[in-house]
Amino acid sequence: MKRLPLKITILGSGNVATQFATTFHAAGATIAEVYSPNAAHAKTLAKKVKANVVKSIADLSAADFILIAVKDDALTATVKALPAGKGIVVHTAGSVPMNVLQKFPQHGVLYPLQTISKKRTLKTEQLPLCIEASDKKTLAKLKQIAQLISGKVRLLDSDQRRAAHLAAVFACNFTNHLYAIAGQLLEEKNLPFDLLRPLILETAEKVQQLSPSEAQTGPALRNDRSVMNKHLALLKTHPEWKQLYRLFSKSIHDSAPKK
Amino acid sequence: MKRLPLKITILGSGNVATQFATTFHAAGATIAEVYSPNAAHAKTLAKKVKANVVKSIADLSAADFILIAVKDDALTATVKALPAGKGIVVHTAGSVPMNVLQKFPQHGVLYPLQTISKKRTLKTEQLPLCIEASDKKTLAKLKQIAQLISGKVRLLDSDQRRAAHLAAVFACNFTNHLYAIAGQLLEEKNLPFDLLRPLILETAEKVQQLSPSEAQTGPALRNDRSVMNKHLALLKTHPEWKQLYRLFSKSIHDSAPKK
Repeated sequence: MKRLPLKITILGSGNVATQFATTFHAAGATIAEVYSPNAAHAKTLAKKVKANVVKSIADLSAADFILIAVKDDALTATVKALPAGKGIVVHTAGSVPMNVLQKFPQHGVLYPLQTISKKRTLKTEQLPLCIEASDKKTLAKLKQIAQLISGKVRLLDSDQRRAAHLAAVFACNFTNHLYAIAGQLLEEKNLPFDLLRPLILETAEKVQQLSPSEAQTGPALRNDRSVMNKHLALLKTHPEWKQLYRLFSKSIHDSAPKK
Repeated sequence: MKRLPLKITILGSGNVATQFATTFHAAGATIAEVYSPNAAHAKTLAKKVKANVVKSIADLSAADFILIAVKDDALTATVKALPAGKGIVVHTAGSVPMNVLQKFPQHGVLYPLQTISKKRTLKTEQLPLCIEASDKKTLAKLKQIAQLISGKVRLLDSDQRRAAHLAAVFACNFTNHLYAIAGQLLEEKNLPFDLLRPLILETAEKVQQLSPSEAQTGPALRNDRSVMNKHLALLKTHPEWKQLYRLFSKSIHDSAPKK
């Protein structure tokens, strides 16, 4: 594939850094250098995207686009160590305001509203990117860069991005934990998780067209006390799950359309 | 399509009754009669599957297979009114034991572990059916009938089925409510629900191969206190969601694999 005239530096070697590096590489950009405090991970990632590993932030060469995808608590130190150059510097964190990057003349944010694991590579329609930039010119450039790898690029300010990150925790992290609880309830009766997979998929597919309110079903929506009491009795050995059951049932019932 | 030598009676006209009637009809079975206390819904359903509407349970003709898909609280009255005939009588409820049907010589349960709405018709791989029957002969027959419309038929006793129903409430009804909460968090910042759809789908698709524990990501798993505190601050006007946030974060952290 022909390489684009876009030279990218990646700081970090975790799930998000890996997703961005491999996707930009596949889209034809050049990943010139990778830096990460985890030397083994940096090496693995650099090999995947034909980049050089750099041992210290101070040794990084100039680049058009510097993407910082490190843990939130390592971000401040990374920013401090990185010299202000000519490229656009972005971070990828949902809950960190853009202005932590203000020492760089051109800066911004490229936040992926997605659950990212090294084991899965996402297609452009599966990777909504929320962008923000220090100025109009940088924003135009960042948008162009984001569109190389995403079919869904959207401008969000730091305040909106923080809300989107929180929403993602509910829609993804908490949802996945509900899957885990459901799986354990089955396991206690010697039933496999596989039994739930079609239901889990259909629940997600349903809201691809419908709104969650149109898609809602179940005893709490119908206010079916008899079923709910049986369920609470079954949960007697799991006080935390029982508390979740009560909270959800009340909240579902309270938000049901009144007939 | 050639009709099978299987004559079915449907009692009920809601989401589950409609799903079963239309799917059995499409599979080549004959839906002979439909009864429902809701006359308008009964008429709509009967028309769809070329069946006759019967005005009173006492007027139903003999059938090979009588499927009762009414609300749980209407089940006892329906069973009482239905004369014991020669066919297999089943109910479709997750949390009702099979023995409520013991007055019928051949009886059983056909419980769909799925979220069912009239707006969506499900394919055989999307409709896991949990079956239970009064005796071996009836079980063999019921299995055959279930396999006409489902690629995933599994034997569950009443105790297991109750647990599966509870698991489904967590994996589907509560999950869908998390989608609703996430949508409202976005709406407060003028962001559309559509922004979350790829994330919701990927979260469900991830656990089609992985286990929920392998698929888990997010601040609670990483025990990222700084992000979680920001999120709790954002939820100050939503005490119920804040309580959910705390419960989930603790539960995710407690069940994370220890390093």
